[in-house]
Amino acid sequence: MGEFELIRRYFLPLAGDTRSAAVSLGPGDDCAIERLPTGTELVFSIDTMVEGVHFPVQYDPARLAWRSLAAAASDLAAMGADPVCFTLALTLPEAGDDWLQAFAGGLGEAAKAFGLALAGGDTTRGPLSVTFQVHGTVPQGQALLRSGATPGDLVCVSGTLGDAGAALALLERDPSTADARYLLQRYHRPEPRLALGQQLRGRASAAIDLSDGLLADLGHILAASGVGADVDVSRLPLSDALRRHAGSRAGALALRSGDDYELCATIPQAVWPALPETLRERLTVIGEISAQAGLRLQNAGAELAAGAGYDHFGDPS
Amino acid sequence: MGEFELIRRYFLPLAGDTRSAAVSLGPGDDCAIERLPTGTELVFSIDTMVEGVHFPVQYDPARLAWRSLAAAASDLAAMGADPVCFTLALTLPEAGDDWLQAFAGGLGEAAKAFGLALAGGDTTRGPLSVTFQVHGTVPQGQALLRSGATPGDLVCVSGTLGDAGAALALLERDPSTADARYLLQRYHRPEPRLALGQQLRGRASAAIDLSDGLLADLGHILAASGVGADVDVSRLPLSDALRRHAGSRAGALALRSGDDYELCATIPQAVWPALPETLRERLTVIGEISAQAGLRLQNAGAELAAGAGYDHFGDPS
Repeated sequence: MGEFELIRRYFLPLAGDTRSAAVSLGPGDDCAIERLPTGTELVFSIDTMVEGVHFPVQYDPARLAWRSLAAAASDLAAMGADPVCFTLALTLPEAGDDWLQAFAGGLGEAAKAFGLALAGGDTTRGPLSVTFQVHGTVPQGQALLRSGATPGDLVCVSGTLGDAGAALALLERDPSTADARYLLQRYHRPEPRLALGQQLRGRASAAIDLSDGLLADLGHILAASGVGADVDVSRLPLSDALRRHAGSRAGALALRSGDDYELCATIPQAVWPALPETLRERLTVIGEISAQAGLRLQNAGAELAAGAGYDHFGDPS
Repeated sequence: MGEFELIRRYFLPLAGDTRSAAVSLGPGDDCAIERLPTGTELVFSIDTMVEGVHFPVQYDPARLAWRSLAAAASDLAAMGADPVCFTLALTLPEAGDDWLQAFAGGLGEAAKAFGLALAGGDTTRGPLSVTFQVHGTVPQGQALLRSGATPGDLVCVSGTLGDAGAALALLERDPSTADARYLLQRYHRPEPRLALGQQLRGRASAAIDLSDGLLADLGHILAASGVGADVDVSRLPLSDALRRHAGSRAGALALRSGDDYELCATIPQAVWPALPETLRERLTVIGEISAQAGLRLQNAGAELAAGAGYDHFGDPS
């Protein structure tokens, strides 16, 4: 199957299924074209996942499509953006019908779930990797940045942490328990917190998505904002499945492991009580921003008190 | 060197050097942010180049950076877009200082030459490949599409064709002649025809850039426009270097080989005489659009009369 036939068979139908009025020209020309509503800015991010690095060798193609588009869309959530569209650069060793059909199926499901139209792409032959660029919009000047945290702000996270990290050790096995199946689902099918990010616009002072682990990612907020933080490890939100499955390792997983794609946001104390209850219910306060540089852990065992997050080049930074 | 250090050392300085007022937030957050001038649309394209497929193994990193950003920017030229910014997803096996310094150097040179600001990116470990997404703008509704050609339009191309294709066979050798050096330069350092594309806005009825070869790329215009064309092979613009170097193979190279990154545009006959002389001088009329489907070659030897362009999955299509 040639490149053009591959695009015609798998990706043009997907573009039709996910069509958006904002994309005035979709795949099939030299470029795609997007119109932005007046008073908005374009928010965009590019993310690559490589076989054997970011996902297992021989990984299920439908899961790969969902997981990698979710990871990219999670960056839109962290900015508080309204999702619009995406491009896909797919590099694969051979154009197998079964693989492509499953990949396009998972991609269509994810794109519809996240509200993202397929606007364009490129398919090339080579070692398997998937690159997505996602586009969103925010009202001008209202994007959530990493750099706005100020002393006294509450440090909050969504959902539960550490689940996807616990699943890493389970990927090669058949899950024997409901807990293992739950944790694997959290790894395979992350949910970018797009609606939550939008609700945090105008309320949070800073935000980031948790792709590399809480310590690393909160560290980015601290560095960008020029502040420090105190985090109470006993307040980290842990799923029951993680507590039962990981036991005493649960706290370390919640602090250090990545791939959860929850949001971490800082919220001024004066804003917190005025948040809609439905929004407060989605967040757990785990600490406070301070003027003193550094990230200090309270109620942590000695083994938790040092170290940092995941770095894509493998060096602790 | 970790991912963050790599970005800090090589790519943040490059973002500073290429800064644009349109990019209101550059690299370093979850997303970048771009503002579009009122009345314009965003034009964007994503392109991947894989080692051993789109460029030679052990290819010079500065040339790789130039060539792959040029190939991406060429899609903006084909739409008549004003260049704005780009993102880079770089996958490389190891983060070697020499390689990265040369790559960033070539990239900075290309980005400045093309008027593109580095807005964001992602670096991952894996087999070497480079993905660029380029962004431009056009006044709303004025992008050059593939689909606007109508019978009677003149088929035009810029520059000379076949040079980069002739260079493919020279990549492994030391060039012994000035002609070989010229052809290699055309392969290593393509010039996206951005200014030409902008001049064609409102004048050409359709346009495409020549990445896969004239037959294949003009074929895309014909398919998208629902028309055919007659092309006079004796009118194809050939460089003196190509004529001397390739002899009787020059015509076939000009028709079939890719990587020239010239533009092919169709221009209504009534528009042609009114074009500025400087614009007409940059174009060669090679044929005419007809209502009869198919691409017919005049003055072609038998060996030129069949076949098609390059397909990234290797199948003749």
